[in-house]
Amino acid sequence: MSVTASSPAKIILFGEHFVVYGEPALATAIDKRAYVSADLRSDERIYVSSADLGISGYFLNESFQADCGGPEARAKLEPVRIAAQRILNLAKKKGGVNVKVRSSIPVAAGLGSSAAVAAAAASSIGQLLGVEVSRDDIFQAALEAERFVHGTPSGIDPAIATYGGVLLYYKGKGHTCLKVEGDLPLVVGDTGIKRSTGEMVAQVRKMKKRYPSILNPLIKAGGRIALCAVEALKRGDLNTLGELMNINHAMLSAVGVSNEPLDRLVHAARRAGALGAKLTGAGGGGCIIALSHPEKLGQIVEEIEREGGKAFVARKTNLGVNIERP
Amino acid sequence: MSVTASSPAKIILFGEHFVVYGEPALATAIDKRAYVSADLRSDERIYVSSADLGISGYFLNESFQADCGGPEARAKLEPVRIAAQRILNLAKKKGGVNVKVRSSIPVAAGLGSSAAVAAAAASSIGQLLGVEVSRDDIFQAALEAERFVHGTPSGIDPAIATYGGVLLYYKGKGHTCLKVEGDLPLVVGDTGIKRSTGEMVAQVRKMKKRYPSILNPLIKAGGRIALCAVEALKRGDLNTLGELMNINHAMLSAVGVSNEPLDRLVHAARRAGALGAKLTGAGGGGCIIALSHPEKLGQIVEEIEREGGKAFVARKTNLGVNIERP
Repeated sequence: MSVTASSPAKIILFGEHFVVYGEPALATAIDKRAYVSADLRSDERIYVSSADLGISGYFLNESFQADCGGPEARAKLEPVRIAAQRILNLAKKKGGVNVKVRSSIPVAAGLGSSAAVAAAAASSIGQLLGVEVSRDDIFQAALEAERFVHGTPSGIDPAIATYGGVLLYYKGKGHTCLKVEGDLPLVVGDTGIKRSTGEMVAQVRKMKKRYPSILNPLIKAGGRIALCAVEALKRGDLNTLGELMNINHAMLSAVGVSNEPLDRLVHAARRAGALGAKLTGAGGGGCIIALSHPEKLGQIVEEIEREGGKAFVARKTNLGVNIERP
Repeated sequence: MSVTASSPAKIILFGEHFVVYGEPALATAIDKRAYVSADLRSDERIYVSSADLGISGYFLNESFQADCGGPEARAKLEPVRIAAQRILNLAKKKGGVNVKVRSSIPVAAGLGSSAAVAAAAASSIGQLLGVEVSRDDIFQAALEAERFVHGTPSGIDPAIATYGGVLLYYKGKGHTCLKVEGDLPLVVGDTGIKRSTGEMVAQVRKMKKRYPSILNPLIKAGGRIALCAVEALKRGDLNTLGELMNINHAMLSAVGVSNEPLDRLVHAARRAGALGAKLTGAGGGGCIIALSHPEKLGQIVEEIEREGGKAFVARKTNLGVNIERP
């Protein structure tokens, strides 16, 4: 018997980077999902495979044996193993599961792919073993997996992967789920440029140290954007949300995390009729998001692709981690 | 006998728009100048001509008679007449001068062309009439001319046109001349897009009213940039000045006054090796400036022109309004 669970990708709507300094960030789950199927093995090993990445391997205690992708595959499979292990420990079971990952979430693009995979893995294994696993258990499993990936993750990705919907997040104070009715029609545009979140965070920290009198009020202003956005979201006021995205993008540029490829996609989206557009996540590469009335989503996708990006339409989803009916 | 005076163009280095809300702005005179020659007429009329604009006409009391350019020419010639009139009044003379303008300053590009012409006109007429005209008289004459053009001008343009050099300016509190040694190698890139300063200022005011919790700390941060820049200028620290320009550009984007053409020129300059680049002046069109080590100025000019802008090298000058030796 195999059990499949899925978990959503996330995008940060407002407040990335400023969240590091205690300001609120606003994130939403979107309708791109990671799917993880789990079934029992006859031995004690944990087998993890990712069809999309073309890698797989066997974990047993501290050892790893590659199946596809060689020893380098370990780093990418390890977070799944960590989440799986946590649930196996909860179930007081030593191992013996196959964990198969399929995902439509672009990886290393700031969309929370690894947290979604980890949350779905934790959920599917819990269900498979018939052990009672709460959403908080799944969140903790995904968070532990994220710690392996990011060192000190903000916790936004595991929270979105687990609970879905829109979250207002304060570092160290956790998240608040927001009841948001109505559609949030977005386009995600990927520059295709890989970047390191850690490096971008370090770069902002360095700038803040160098120009505290400039960066401190700027970061404060950044936090206010997320709070204004919450009000606009509650009203379903897309025009205001778009304008706030434009302001937020410029403020991320001010702290040095935008660049020409990101700005080009942002302008492409605006040119095609977006209500607003901004980089999302760490910056320095990765993705932008554009907010739009539904009828213009197609044009925005086209214009971003003409500018050299990869684009897809994304919509807010309230569905967090979920057991898929067979 | 004809007397010629010249006056420099200005660029705002830091703090445009934020200066409206009490924050400091930093501006410099550059080595593009307006030249005005004055000679006596046998009647009481004031004849003003601009070879570059191809317009000219006669003023007598409140009447205007076009020579070239038709009645529309009046609005462009009137500021020169106002400055001239002020000096004629000082000299207790009723009129009777020819005022001929030649200028290498692009017009309506935020470079203070009209103030430079007015200051040079005031100076040349004072000298022609042999009346003692102080620099403050010239500043006041240029300021009065600016009031005709802009309604409520900041006073930066007349101050730079008169005194030259680098000025730190607070609205309503006047300016401080800064002693700045060393070169400040800049490229000015013109989008060629005309914009209205008044409209851009009104647009920012509207945004501030709409999002006070965001814009107030942002404007404060904007003011800090000019103060950090003063310190860097005194040290001759071009790298820091460049970085501050990048931050300033992004903060002007945040208040909504940048756009795609400006961003394109800014990125072109950075791509070609500028230490930093920003829009200068009101935004929405007009010019950008880029700071550079001297050896890269040529590349930056080329890259801006490749991107569709018009570009020229500009250097700080300490020479304010000046009587040209014949």
